[in-house]
Amino acid sequence: MDIFKFAIPEVIFGRGSLQYASICAKRLGASKIFVVSDPGVEEAGWVEALLDILRQENLDFVYFNDVVPNPRDFQVHNGAELYRREEADVVMALGGGSPMDAAKGIALIVSNGGVIADYEGANMVSRPLPPMVFIPTTMGSESNISQFTVVTDVERRVKMTVISRTLVPNISITDPLLLETLNRDQIIPPLFDSLAHAVESYVSPIANPFTEAWSLKGLDLLMRHIRPALEHRRLEDLEQLAIAGTSSGMAFTNASVGLGHALAHALGGMHDVVHGTAHSLLLPSVMRYNLPVCEAKMAKIGEVITGKRLKTDEATALAGIEALEQLRGEIGIPGRLREILPDRTMLPQASHNAVKDICLLTNPRPADWKDILNIYYEMW
Amino acid sequence: MDIFKFAIPEVIFGRGSLQYASICAKRLGASKIFVVSDPGVEEAGWVEALLDILRQENLDFVYFNDVVPNPRDFQVHNGAELYRREEADVVMALGGGSPMDAAKGIALIVSNGGVIADYEGANMVSRPLPPMVFIPTTMGSESNISQFTVVTDVERRVKMTVISRTLVPNISITDPLLLETLNRDQIIPPLFDSLAHAVESYVSPIANPFTEAWSLKGLDLLMRHIRPALEHRRLEDLEQLAIAGTSSGMAFTNASVGLGHALAHALGGMHDVVHGTAHSLLLPSVMRYNLPVCEAKMAKIGEVITGKRLKTDEATALAGIEALEQLRGEIGIPGRLREILPDRTMLPQASHNAVKDICLLTNPRPADWKDILNIYYEMW
Repeated sequence: MDIFKFAIPEVIFGRGSLQYASICAKRLGASKIFVVSDPGVEEAGWVEALLDILRQENLDFVYFNDVVPNPRDFQVHNGAELYRREEADVVMALGGGSPMDAAKGIALIVSNGGVIADYEGANMVSRPLPPMVFIPTTMGSESNISQFTVVTDVERRVKMTVISRTLVPNISITDPLLLETLNRDQIIPPLFDSLAHAVESYVSPIANPFTEAWSLKGLDLLMRHIRPALEHRRLEDLEQLAIAGTSSGMAFTNASVGLGHALAHALGGMHDVVHGTAHSLLLPSVMRYNLPVCEAKMAKIGEVITGKRLKTDEATALAGIEALEQLRGEIGIPGRLREILPDRTMLPQASHNAVKDICLLTNPRPADWKDILNIYYEMW
Repeated sequence: MDIFKFAIPEVIFGRGSLQYASICAKRLGASKIFVVSDPGVEEAGWVEALLDILRQENLDFVYFNDVVPNPRDFQVHNGAELYRREEADVVMALGGGSPMDAAKGIALIVSNGGVIADYEGANMVSRPLPPMVFIPTTMGSESNISQFTVVTDVERRVKMTVISRTLVPNISITDPLLLETLNRDQIIPPLFDSLAHAVESYVSPIANPFTEAWSLKGLDLLMRHIRPALEHRRLEDLEQLAIAGTSSGMAFTNASVGLGHALAHALGGMHDVVHGTAHSLLLPSVMRYNLPVCEAKMAKIGEVITGKRLKTDEATALAGIEALEQLRGEIGIPGRLREILPDRTMLPQASHNAVKDICLLTNPRPADWKDILNIYYEMW
């Protein structure tokens, strides 16, 4: 067994735990907090709720909300400028993957200088970041747990992945009550991102006994609670999905992800495809592509998804993949790329971009741009 | 579900990972490292190996080895004095639970002042500690993972437990190669400490979905690998036991432990009983005592231990308890208190001490001093 590392933030989890935001910021020495969120979270009322908690403790803050899905490099740079001008000293993010990833980018630039493109890749960050408290409002991105941030280079139309242990927030606060205001369209995509985290981290060549346990726990809880959560929207199910997401997050931050993320990033960079939607489309095909080189692990995944072992590993694995496709169909989300892209002319360029994505390094089966283009075409 | 917290150090795990000690110390800003170990670890050659690694990177250090099993308060205070005199700035521990707990005590005193007794109990530490890198040389104590330290108050003959999030080391380095030099008497007691961590954290009233997963994983790996590890001393089994210990550690640091630890601490404080030996004696009785209030969870434990579900939860649970007693018998370690204590006159006082132990707060079933005395008498 190779040497491996396992690092996660301090996790605070539970109904009402949003209240801990001010205690956490104080513990990290905050004198002025840089709060990052977005208009959608504002609309749900959670930004005001958080700012009230900070005000009650007389904590000073600056608020920044210029963030869109697939956050842009210039938004990160603008945020960093504001942070410096206001002399903030702790970064707090409230939102889905986009505000959290933007907040990480801001924390990175204010402490290490330069522009976000300077840090694309793994282990390019040399100086420590300001303390970070992250509060997710969706289940699935798990930027609150991970050492990843993904920011779009507008000029190159590429989603840049930055991986560094310094990007793991100091504290993650997951309050399942925040999930109750999500609508169906907000819930679904991150859940498929989370499924991709669980599956891709499990078959990653750098998976280890600690990450494997979390991958399977996340996958199991997702499969048990996605349907009831979407049907009844009970807090109990949302809470279990939040546990699932946190579990998948603990796995993928340490074992990384694979081909599916490379493919999703390429589409997101060129055509602003919602990251989770890309996964719901691509994950089964990516699993089929990887199956020949990791049959035993894919069979374990299939067993967790379906609750059954069939006669061969291959059959068990395929049953799991088909069950994911069936889930996608039942939920009624796009099953073909043509439903979300204007035309297929972008796909060769997307394939070339995907080959350069750092996530491909931790895919169990190598893939060149033609292999990737074939997967895109199959899904067209 | 209540709000809960889950915090662990950054974990580095694997054969040869001792080499990372210098990189980790540097990353934490070390200019002079305070290395804590003990004569036993010196004899195995690991202290010299570690100091060589530090020397190769031109890292300055001070070495402190005045530590005994069940480390004493005055040893901690002496260590703190040396740390201050030498102006060290990072604490590195290499050893079993004793050097690691002593090192935590030293880090606590140099940063927060006073004496160790000032911090007895939970959450009594207000100021941050110097950075800590911990390298275990046994499987089981898991002080390298936990927010606990236990130090003996020599005057009162009491083992004081200090619990604080600040006591979680920054980095834990577990190198299974270090386990190969252990003899049978060094391997066995910590394994029963680890079994107690897994079982007691699982039935703790503050267990949560994250700790529960680790409790069961730790228990499962312990039961699978204790016998082969003792028989063949293969690195593969030792490595799996180290994973087991780390897992149990991640569970108990966040869910705490219970009655068994209160009982073991009381014996250790009054008569210097080896902590793990106390657990091998007491754990089954403690499980029987707790069984009526947590039958379902005890049945899950029984199922993991025996691999079987019997007709009732109670029967499954009891089969697990009996299997632990059988394991103890097979290994040939003491099964009665009279084999390790001079006489039973100390037991009433030990029972009074155990009632005051903070670990009792997280036992699922309340116990007064008479209940505890009964357990001790049963085990006489």
